[in-house]
Amino acid sequence: MKTINVAVNGYGVIGKRVVEAIDLQEDMKLVGIGDVAADWRIQTAASKGYAIFANTEDGRNAMTQENIQVAGNLDDLLDAADVVVDCTPKKFGAENAQRYKSAGVKFIVQGGEKHHITGHSFAAESNYISALGRHSTRVVSCNTTSIVRTLSALKRADLLKKARGTLLRRATDPWESHKNGIMNTMVPEPKIPSHQGPDAQSVDPELDVVTAAVKVPQTLSHLHYWTVQLTREASKEEVLKAFDTSTRTAFIKMSDGLSANNAVKELMLDINRPHGDMYEVAIWEDMLKVEGDELYYAYLVDNQAIVIPETIDAIRALTEIESDPQKSIDKTNQSLGIRQQFV
Amino acid sequence: MKTINVAVNGYGVIGKRVVEAIDLQEDMKLVGIGDVAADWRIQTAASKGYAIFANTEDGRNAMTQENIQVAGNLDDLLDAADVVVDCTPKKFGAENAQRYKSAGVKFIVQGGEKHHITGHSFAAESNYISALGRHSTRVVSCNTTSIVRTLSALKRADLLKKARGTLLRRATDPWESHKNGIMNTMVPEPKIPSHQGPDAQSVDPELDVVTAAVKVPQTLSHLHYWTVQLTREASKEEVLKAFDTSTRTAFIKMSDGLSANNAVKELMLDINRPHGDMYEVAIWEDMLKVEGDELYYAYLVDNQAIVIPETIDAIRALTEIESDPQKSIDKTNQSLGIRQQFV
Amino acid sequence: MKTINVAVNGYGVIGKRVVEAIDLQEDMKLVGIGDVAADWRIQTAASKGYAIFANTEDGRNAMTQENIQVAGNLDDLLDAADVVVDCTPKKFGAENAQRYKSAGVKFIVQGGEKHHITGHSFAAESNYISALGRHSTRVVSCNTTSIVRTLSALKRADLLKKARGTLLRRATDPWESHKNGIMNTMVPEPKIPSHQGPDAQSVDPELDVVTAAVKVPQTLSHLHYWTVQLTREASKEEVLKAFDTSTRTAFIKMSDGLSANNAVKELMLDINRPHGDMYEVAIWEDMLKVEGDELYYAYLVDNQAIVIPETIDAIRALTEIESDPQKSIDKTNQSLGIRQQFV
Amino acid sequence: MKTINVAVNGYGVIGKRVVEAIDLQEDMKLVGIGDVAADWRIQTAASKGYAIFANTEDGRNAMTQENIQVAGNLDDLLDAADVVVDCTPKKFGAENAQRYKSAGVKFIVQGGEKHHITGHSFAAESNYISALGRHSTRVVSCNTTSIVRTLSALKRADLLKKARGTLLRRATDPWESHKNGIMNTMVPEPKIPSHQGPDAQSVDPELDVVTAAVKVPQTLSHLHYWTVQLTREASKEEVLKAFDTSTRTAFIKMSDGLSANNAVKELMLDINRPHGDMYEVAIWEDMLKVEGDELYYAYLVDNQAIVIPETIDAIRALTEIESDPQKSIDKTNQSLGIRQQFV
Repeated sequence: MKTINVAVNGYGVIGKRVVEAIDLQEDMKLVGIGDVAADWRIQTAASKGYAIFANTEDGRNAMTQENIQVAGNLDDLLDAADVVVDCTPKKFGAENAQRYKSAGVKFIVQGGEKHHITGHSFAAESNYISALGRHSTRVVSCNTTSIVRTLSALKRADLLKKARGTLLRRATDPWESHKNGIMNTMVPEPKIPSHQGPDAQSVDPELDVVTAAVKVPQTLSHLHYWTVQLTREASKEEVLKAFDTSTRTAFIKMSDGLSANNAVKELMLDINRPHGDMYEVAIWEDMLKVEGDELYYAYLVDNQAIVIPETIDAIRALTEIESDPQKSIDKTNQSLGIRQQFV
Repeated sequence: MKTINVAVNGYGVIGKRVVEAIDLQEDMKLVGIGDVAADWRIQTAASKGYAIFANTEDGRNAMTQENIQVAGNLDDLLDAADVVVDCTPKKFGAENAQRYKSAGVKFIVQGGEKHHITGHSFAAESNYISALGRHSTRVVSCNTTSIVRTLSALKRADLLKKARGTLLRRATDPWESHKNGIMNTMVPEPKIPSHQGPDAQSVDPELDVVTAAVKVPQTLSHLHYWTVQLTREASKEEVLKAFDTSTRTAFIKMSDGLSANNAVKELMLDINRPHGDMYEVAIWEDMLKVEGDELYYAYLVDNQAIVIPETIDAIRALTEIESDPQKSIDKTNQSLGIRQQFV
Repeated sequence: MKTINVAVNGYGVIGKRVVEAIDLQEDMKLVGIGDVAADWRIQTAASKGYAIFANTEDGRNAMTQENIQVAGNLDDLLDAADVVVDCTPKKFGAENAQRYKSAGVKFIVQGGEKHHITGHSFAAESNYISALGRHSTRVVSCNTTSIVRTLSALKRADLLKKARGTLLRRATDPWESHKNGIMNTMVPEPKIPSHQGPDAQSVDPELDVVTAAVKVPQTLSHLHYWTVQLTREASKEEVLKAFDTSTRTAFIKMSDGLSANNAVKELMLDINRPHGDMYEVAIWEDMLKVEGDELYYAYLVDNQAIVIPETIDAIRALTEIESDPQKSIDKTNQSLGIRQQFV
Repeated sequence: MKTINVAVNGYGVIGKRVVEAIDLQEDMKLVGIGDVAADWRIQTAASKGYAIFANTEDGRNAMTQENIQVAGNLDDLLDAADVVVDCTPKKFGAENAQRYKSAGVKFIVQGGEKHHITGHSFAAESNYISALGRHSTRVVSCNTTSIVRTLSALKRADLLKKARGTLLRRATDPWESHKNGIMNTMVPEPKIPSHQGPDAQSVDPELDVVTAAVKVPQTLSHLHYWTVQLTREASKEEVLKAFDTSTRTAFIKMSDGLSANNAVKELMLDINRPHGDMYEVAIWEDMLKVEGDELYYAYLVDNQAIVIPETIDAIRALTEIESDPQKSIDKTNQSLGIRQQFV
């Protein structure tokens, strides 16, 4: 089997998960990690045996001082790679794209970057084919990925007319919640519609979707509430069956005690997911309600994890190591233990 | 001028505010407070000179031990009153209603109680007239009051077809946040639709409204997001004008820095509101968006304060001391400093 | 009576409270407020009738755009003042001090600034006399003020040998808790001892005090825990009597239900304190324990409010409008309603 | 090798971790789990293949309804076991003890129970020997375990005279933080000294230790601050060396970016600890300070994990399957990956 050499640039919340996911793929090989820090995060990566590349001279010096063996600089890392997954903070992706292009290496940026940087926005179940052989793509953000997954499922069943959502966002990620949080308040996006609706349309322009978004003071996951105008009156069973056509949504039940973000996080830890990650969109089955031609439902999105399988698929699409979308999705799902029922 | 003798039974978050609001009305006189506790809250009420009545023997003993002068028992309190405002915890209102009826005193219960206890649910701007001379009414809950106020305004302007809302609720009130809270999570209501939609219909059965609700880990105020199907395409100005027909909604602006629950709370404290109370529904003017025949907006609800002016109006309606709704509303607004612009 | 003209530079958490406190003093007159912002905070100040001065051209333009009448620039404000209270953010105080000196106006900086900027650190009950007629002083920080107040009381009673404290700090103030917080974690000061011990010694070098400090995810108040080595075995009554010699400490009781920061905050709102402010150090009387020659106790510090009375006294000391410390303290206490028992 | 049959009664935060730890021991075999619930937690346990026993008839019915295969009742479970680890909620341990005695099975209760229930309180590094062959013991609580580990290390080095601690406790555990929390406040224990000092003395009566405790609004871990009077002036190196004599304390550094509870939790997840568990007491090496004969330091305690290795050792002590304390500790440490440096 051909093996793709993958570099990961930026070892943060997404980067480290991409690294671990690549390790689980039979058709990929991690050639190294680029970063600029030398704190406990990079020390831990080094102690696991990953090759660490220093993106800056300051970074190299700091790493050396902490006894982290430096395998080279960013150019060296790119030289070794067929494709690089950019997981650097928001402002760096655009600049890095230029570098990846100059180096002639395929690349993937994350959803914090603008669509125009790659000209293609990716969600595996929706448009894998259109990414085949491209030089680059953008894996859309956690919120957008969940929107595209769920609304596309309704669309495939010819049930979706229009969808209006309220997105309750985790305010910050756990690892940086000591310096970047909100307390005892909520922070609405200043504008309605928020950007996630148009972002979903960057994957599928046909989706009629409008969103409002607000940050809430918790670190665990996003919670989306939806009102959907269906194309016709439908039964709850029809809707559940539609969602089931996505292999990356899972049903959970209030009646099982899975009644809040923390309970679902604990479940993920209990089933031995690394970091307690949930790659699936977790839809409350018993909360979901159909009234005539209207549908109401809510789900949880693990913002740290949901884009990981998408990124793995994007690597396969760009490199054409697998041209069949479902085969790639199945490999990824299998390797990460993605499932449609948790209990 | 005739003066109504009012008793307040239960000196909690709502009770103490009703007491203070009655003190500000020229046509009302507080005859006393009924309670069962003797802690700092009742000690403070007593130190302000309010007459304290003990609802139970245990309560009387505890009060005596804390040197709180006990003015009598609940029967004594009811004897002295033309109307009693029940502000006891949820489970007691139904039982107390029987007692108020037996004592032949008019009464008001809060929104935690069921509609059937009084057979009438009250929101001043919507149905004051229908409460005139009744023996009892129920002031609907904070969430429902805000829904009725805002949707009724749209309805008066013939703009409302149907409304779908997501209600982000404060998880607990500040005074009891040391024993009754949620942490680093969100807790959705298990069912959609949540009860607030039907509750709004207990005031106005014509409202086509569906809600979903979720508790978020903060103590300050509720935040409601709405998608409204208008009866026709409309301009933003038309919508703003519609909301302006309620004297108890106020516009706030993100662009003034009023960008989160905490900022609005701080503003209320800065304009010298007692307890930092906001009686108005605070609608973000610059976030509100009309697209064709759809309207999107969000507002804040101070769950501790919004029902206070409604309760004052309900007293006037039951006792017929004022038969003109707008005159009662104006008196209440004037006394509490209610306004439609804060800055 | 002579009246002192006071300017307040910086209208934030401390500045607005100083403004309101000055308004309550018979021997002081507020000549105006200097600031650079034009958001709801300054709009509210202007709507209350305070004279607003623009410290920068950008500030003036922003204010004009928001229809805030600008009374002049910082030079104009200083011209009108006998003394200026600097309440600008931390980094500006040192720079401003130069300006105040050039303008020949006496000045007070807040505890965020270094001691050397004024060469004098102030706590009314400890060293009012030494500030008499000085050109400037620094009112020490909220934490330090509480430490000096309480330990000085023990020292006056010849009970204090050494004190070791753990300071649990509120992570951010409510008004900015939407952008500057910590979530579901605690953040220790990296070094022990933390700076508050030496800072207390800038007021009284004889205090043997060592502190450790940590930020906790709440916005209400600081909580200090102390272990004190007494000079001798003592009774609880002796210790309580010692604390009673400060007119700015108050005892609270767990047994009254005042069992947490939120309950005490609610009490302050219930007794009609503006902003719910607590100027006093609130010591738990029934938690305080003496075992042999060791003393253990804990208290709450309202970090937004505790330095306000100190600042008022500092104005009197610098301007020598009152040369007797206790007379100034009494005037301030009277005007602000400071008391030693809340319930 | 002889294998001990172990039952775990109660599958909560501690119970599930004990189950997983037993699975890792070569000299132990899990015979089953007793519980009364049938929600996602027990469903997950069943799906992992553990034998589930129903402690009550209601429990059995609920389990059957959820398609959980019930292996028997509590008597059946005890019949199969040489020793049972009781991990039921606080109020049940005392009652269960009678049942274990009647069944003639050795048992271990958790630190929420009183000392007198077993007459012996256990901490592996302190008193393993005294538990050898006993019928029962109590593994002391998370806070107490950490206190005994660290102070015993100082005692072994003849450095400990007396220790005074402030314990900042997580307010609730993540899995139940949707129903049992505190918000935007802190809740002090009403009494100083708090119970943890005397509890540590139930393991080692010679420890001169006084504690105060307070709940803070976070779910991750406890944070303890200590002031220790040493027996003599000592160097920081001597103190570090003393702590190093415990194999279950680890040093962490602020300078590595491990500056708050959340960062340390993230590290545990990054090094693949199940549930992100930290069995060690994590002492900040660079924060620790010695001044003359006084020592100041702080550490983190993972309250869900720290007692797990102690419980494993307690099983070996009661059953005498290993009579050498250090050999048991080493086996446990090895199996759980306990280490003295994380990065």
